[in-house]
Amino acid sequence: MRATMIHAAHDIRVEDRPDPILRHPTDAIVTVAAACVCGSDLWPYRGFRETTEPHPIGHEFVGTVTEVGSAVATLSVGDFVIAPWANSCGQCSDCRNGVQVACAHRAIWGGQDEQGLEVDGGQGEAVRVPNADGTLVVVPGVAEPDEALLKSLLSLSDVMGTGHHAALGAQVGPGRSVVVVGDGAVGLSGVLAASRLGATRIIAMSRHADRAEVARAFGATDIVAERGKEAAAKVSELLGGVLADSVLECVGTAESMDQALRCTRAGGALGFVGVPAGGAELPIGVLFSKNITVAGGAASTRNYIPELLKDVMAGTINPGLVFDTVMPLEEAAEAYGAMDERRSIKVMLTP
Amino acid sequence: MRATMIHAAHDIRVEDRPDPILRHPTDAIVTVAAACVCGSDLWPYRGFRETTEPHPIGHEFVGTVTEVGSAVATLSVGDFVIAPWANSCGQCSDCRNGVQVACAHRAIWGGQDEQGLEVDGGQGEAVRVPNADGTLVVVPGVAEPDEALLKSLLSLSDVMGTGHHAALGAQVGPGRSVVVVGDGAVGLSGVLAASRLGATRIIAMSRHADRAEVARAFGATDIVAERGKEAAAKVSELLGGVLADSVLECVGTAESMDQALRCTRAGGALGFVGVPAGGAELPIGVLFSKNITVAGGAASTRNYIPELLKDVMAGTINPGLVFDTVMPLEEAAEAYGAMDERRSIKVMLTP
Repeated sequence: MRATMIHAAHDIRVEDRPDPILRHPTDAIVTVAAACVCGSDLWPYRGFRETTEPHPIGHEFVGTVTEVGSAVATLSVGDFVIAPWANSCGQCSDCRNGVQVACAHRAIWGGQDEQGLEVDGGQGEAVRVPNADGTLVVVPGVAEPDEALLKSLLSLSDVMGTGHHAALGAQVGPGRSVVVVGDGAVGLSGVLAASRLGATRIIAMSRHADRAEVARAFGATDIVAERGKEAAAKVSELLGGVLADSVLECVGTAESMDQALRCTRAGGALGFVGVPAGGAELPIGVLFSKNITVAGGAASTRNYIPELLKDVMAGTINPGLVFDTVMPLEEAAEAYGAMDERRSIKVMLTP
Repeated sequence: MRATMIHAAHDIRVEDRPDPILRHPTDAIVTVAAACVCGSDLWPYRGFRETTEPHPIGHEFVGTVTEVGSAVATLSVGDFVIAPWANSCGQCSDCRNGVQVACAHRAIWGGQDEQGLEVDGGQGEAVRVPNADGTLVVVPGVAEPDEALLKSLLSLSDVMGTGHHAALGAQVGPGRSVVVVGDGAVGLSGVLAASRLGATRIIAMSRHADRAEVARAFGATDIVAERGKEAAAKVSELLGGVLADSVLECVGTAESMDQALRCTRAGGALGFVGVPAGGAELPIGVLFSKNITVAGGAASTRNYIPELLKDVMAGTINPGLVFDTVMPLEEAAEAYGAMDERRSIKVMLTP
């Protein structure tokens, strides 16, 4: 099969790789219909995280089950499935607590499973999925989704569930004012999640017309271009002299976290899902004196797929709008470049 | 009147001070029936916070209203009242959001009000209370509480409400396992708050027999003497191989916060109310990967007095047990010494 490998910073190659085969009775093989590049894939791409040896990459994909191990109970050959960005056994105490990202048996896509066997990355033609029952979610009644549906299903693998996680962490609900810091695919998904949870005042922070347009389509009522202190002043002005009840931090840098905290009112809630990088901090003194609740972290999107999928299938949300570009898998290197240079919000790759 | 002044580290004096008089129409004068020394009073006492000039001290008191300003609507002369540790106007957006500690018009006890007039400390014979309507809570039907009731009412000024705030931040409820880090008056109050909120498994951390005894009286099911990693291992052992759902951090040091985080399961909640000191941090990477929710901070105890008071008056909780020592106001310096050296859990001072 063909699959994407990272060799070093700025060195992404699509190469021939062995076709995946079942290695454990709990495995399934999935033929990938679509995959994508995550903002977090850009960390090793940019060299902020070192790539010590070449390995498969990608952790968001959807596709069709082509083989199942003897112990797989909930999946059949032919099922169209969504793979969450983190696989999970579904049975350990962390999984039972709904924190699948902390699963004791989690394997890293493009890394190794707990038996030390290589696990495929998501950006390839096929993937061996460990703990398939605990990981994959079947899309009922769908065999070959069209491109629009494919995009929305793929968004449930990570960005839409991550935006939803941020919104829950920020205690979004009817009557709560919302600020979303970050206009990447996760931030935009956070806008949609906030709208879906009943917020009617949603301030998205963006300086890019194309992203602001998606934010408005997702329910943003205001777009703020200012940053830092000025951003907080603008939020206060828009909200009649108070800061926001709920703030979603969807970037992960020191600047974005600072901006998010400045926009949160005393007693408000901050949902943070941006992978912490570049010195991002949660200053205990500020949280203490302002009574800001902080929740979020790596999203267990496995949890959220069933309820979000229902809304996708009903047509009440269209999270796939974050994919503004589609490329063939062979152009994965260009996909990384487009996202790195922010020429694209998010790229869908089709093998 | 006689009132307690701090002159410098380890220099507490009870002195003659001017009797308080009404300065604003929204003021009330309260004759103090009982006051106490807070763990946070020990910071300047120990010199960890500098005392640049002598000033009145103390922020927890109960007593009888003896005068009210012309604009005071909810209080009458003769009312027995509880003063929360933070006064508040009750009308600004922060107060209306239930975050009275962030009140735009808050005056610091023993400091100045927003007009720059001196405000009395709580450890004295009488106190001018700014924004009396927004600050004081009347104890209905009580004119002269006996010593046991006096202790419980006084605890609602700060420690019991603060323990309750920690428990809410830690999302304590029926079926949740609870760990309380800190065996001071706030930590012990946190045990009682957790028990009151329906937790049936409460692990208190203590190395002092007298404090452990109060913890058990308040509902602790287990006492753990270990610290750091060993404490977390013991918690996991007691809970059958998992960490706690809810952890209350009631100290505020780097060590106690680290211990609290180590005891929290992935996806669990940490309620923190210990005033941050000595390098306490909220490490963003740990919170992100473990999905730990953090809430708490300075407690707006004003909010909680009505519901906690109901339980005190009904006799279903007895938070006054944290006062193991009673001294006359004139011995305030000795009260500080007793708390500093941990000879006393908490001292009640009676003028």
